[in-house]
Amino acid sequence: MPVEEYTEIDYSVADGIATIVLDREARMNAFTGRMCDELVAACDAIDADDAVRVLVITGRGRAFCAGADLGEGGSTFDDRGRDPSQTKAERYGEVNGVGRDRGGVVSLRLAALRVPVIAAINGPAVGVGATMTLPMDVRLAGASARFGFVFARRGIVPEAASSWFLPRVVGISRAMEWAMTGRVFGAREALEGGLVSRVVPDEDLLDAAYALAREVAENTSSVSVAVTRQMMWSMLSAASPWEAHALDSRAIVELGRDADAAEGVTAFLEKRAPAFPLRRTRDHTDLVPEWPARP
Amino acid sequence: MPVEEYTEIDYSVADGIATIVLDREARMNAFTGRMCDELVAACDAIDADDAVRVLVITGRGRAFCAGADLGEGGSTFDDRGRDPSQTKAERYGEVNGVGRDRGGVVSLRLAALRVPVIAAINGPAVGVGATMTLPMDVRLAGASARFGFVFARRGIVPEAASSWFLPRVVGISRAMEWAMTGRVFGAREALEGGLVSRVVPDEDLLDAAYALAREVAENTSSVSVAVTRQMMWSMLSAASPWEAHALDSRAIVELGRDADAAEGVTAFLEKRAPAFPLRRTRDHTDLVPEWPARP
Amino acid sequence: MPVEEYTEIDYSVADGIATIVLDREARMNAFTGRMCDELVAACDAIDADDAVRVLVITGRGRAFCAGADLGEGGSTFDDRGRDPSQTKAERYGEVNGVGRDRGGVVSLRLAALRVPVIAAINGPAVGVGATMTLPMDVRLAGASARFGFVFARRGIVPEAASSWFLPRVVGISRAMEWAMTGRVFGAREALEGGLVSRVVPDEDLLDAAYALAREVAENTSSVSVAVTRQMMWSMLSAASPWEAHALDSRAIVELGRDADAAEGVTAFLEKRAPAFPLRRTRDHTDLVPEWPARP
Repeated sequence: MPVEEYTEIDYSVADGIATIVLDREARMNAFTGRMCDELVAACDAIDADDAVRVLVITGRGRAFCAGADLGEGGSTFDDRGRDPSQTKAERYGEVNGVGRDRGGVVSLRLAALRVPVIAAINGPAVGVGATMTLPMDVRLAGASARFGFVFARRGIVPEAASSWFLPRVVGISRAMEWAMTGRVFGAREALEGGLVSRVVPDEDLLDAAYALAREVAENTSSVSVAVTRQMMWSMLSAASPWEAHALDSRAIVELGRDADAAEGVTAFLEKRAPAFPLRRTRDHTDLVPEWPARP
Repeated sequence: MPVEEYTEIDYSVADGIATIVLDREARMNAFTGRMCDELVAACDAIDADDAVRVLVITGRGRAFCAGADLGEGGSTFDDRGRDPSQTKAERYGEVNGVGRDRGGVVSLRLAALRVPVIAAINGPAVGVGATMTLPMDVRLAGASARFGFVFARRGIVPEAASSWFLPRVVGISRAMEWAMTGRVFGAREALEGGLVSRVVPDEDLLDAAYALAREVAENTSSVSVAVTRQMMWSMLSAASPWEAHALDSRAIVELGRDADAAEGVTAFLEKRAPAFPLRRTRDHTDLVPEWPARP
Repeated sequence: MPVEEYTEIDYSVADGIATIVLDREARMNAFTGRMCDELVAACDAIDADDAVRVLVITGRGRAFCAGADLGEGGSTFDDRGRDPSQTKAERYGEVNGVGRDRGGVVSLRLAALRVPVIAAINGPAVGVGATMTLPMDVRLAGASARFGFVFARRGIVPEAASSWFLPRVVGISRAMEWAMTGRVFGAREALEGGLVSRVVPDEDLLDAAYALAREVAENTSSVSVAVTRQMMWSMLSAASPWEAHALDSRAIVELGRDADAAEGVTAFLEKRAPAFPLRRTRDHTDLVPEWPARP
């Protein structure tokens, strides 16, 4: 899907930073099947584009993402009688005998991205609007951000693989408190619970996100960051630090002989900004096994 | 074991909330084999009773639980020469060639419970009095609560599967600091270390616990909460978020077609309290594999 | 390697506490192959010496450890053309087809140590100077401590198995923020992120470290602490709390029958300091499987 066909997200790239704006302002950027498809397409575009070093995701207007679009009322989560060409299984295949949950399609695609992701949460992030942020690397909140893992209040359960991600991001106790109550809570509670790393005034949110993004884009090797992101997340489920040792021993040898390591050390010693020659789409792309690994 | 036979805990149910009071006030609610048996029996009763939506556990008097009863002095942890009918192996079977540690019997039973558990820690919670709270979902502390993972001071080691639970609740560094010193510490250090989510004045502790319990009981689907609790804890040890995706994709399809999802969304759109028709003892009981899984 | 041959670390033992000072002050204690060898030798000496109950590691002068010695400039991480007798594979064997990364050699050796480790971080801890602290149990920072996971700025990736350790110590979001920016940050940010458990004035740092070390040495059983350390870290990657239950059930039976448990309970009841007779080099050394386990 080419960028010009996106209708539910806005995608742009400038100065090494890609921005995705969830863009259904009239519906508080509620999540749809089409938004899922566009997010996946944008991730594919990013992974193929060396001009992108980092991704910022935010929402249009006063919300980040209000959750699944409840326009179909009580039958929102009932998939029976849907147009088969629109079913999830048709597009993304099956898992566990059913069409793949579209929140999980987005979360797993974001987890596999080769650049870091910064969420700039500018208002309500509820349901899938909250869970889709969990595989992002850093979450920044504007003061008016609100969060809710409201699934138990809707008669369903946390999706988007969030039962795996949420306890790893905030710990099992906070994860259970939020999931078992389904409460909607503010930026302060999110900060105290470790869901966001910083709360800033709403008007400073994008500046803070871009400042962090520039720290990555201007100072680091794109290959180093791509390999690091894959190693760090995948090691969350490694049985032993020996697995990390095996991976990083090989990475240090291979990267240590290549041009970014020479440039990185030289630039540091010469106290100047580095100009890394390697490209993450071409160099050392298979150093780390694919993540997230299918079980 | 019927409720009326309990002598070491007090069990009651009101307004969807079960309460267990550890009830050996003269011994600071010290833990015994009988207390273990009664806790297991109460958990079985809760799982079979749709009237219970959430469990609150606290201690009688000025202590939560002072740990194993040391009434036998230096031979407290020596199992030789005990009455065979009272041995742990007799009642709960063996693991690793020995009778199962009774702290672990309680912890694993609490972990498997189908309703969330809130600890209202009203005074000293030491030894098994501390470790038994780790599989509970939320720990609230009164200002006079005190904690101690004192095992290394007694010449034994952390039990009740706490070497698995504690690092997941508070992180490995805090876990090791508390376990390697065996120090007894107050509510403030417990809060800073993430062992409790809130500290309140002693006289407000039960109110705070019940307020949290009511948030669950009044707003959520019992099936959603039961499945969520099982998913969230079990995914702590899943090798990949694909495992969560497989589970939640199926859960969203099955629950999404059922009556609680219709009621949850409809009630939300109508801005009224939901009245969920499903029952956790009967509906979707096998959606998630048994947790905790034996290795 | 006997103690008197160490030239890059200073090793001493007093009052049950071993101290390692990283000791290349003119190079800000930068890490070398020889320092790796000496650290491994010191760990071997500690594990064989019942007089050592706990280890404190700090740096000479104004730095903790400035990272890999960059004396070879742009070819620092390029292993080609090195003297074969100095290669890593020669000394520590291979992993994943290459010589083992020396940071990982140190980290895995520290992880396997039978006594707890306290880092007293007295200044810059950058690169391997930061990652080598992750398998230590507690990190204390002086006010002038600075940290940097700077690998992506040098064109390499986090080593020393830190992709396994760092997310477990500080959580995945903080780990990714620090690794993807490669930023150098101060003690305050380290404390907020959970990398250190306390920040103290520089002049109080060693006192704080030794006070914590004495808490271990004076109050606990050496066998209990050794077994606890191995259990707690290894259970980080156990698939189920049943594995902990199997281990601790056996440990409680075996230790419960032995002399430290009798002394620990008796001393507690008599309100006196315990005098534990068991020795960690001799008693119950095989109670827990070797950790970290090779995959």
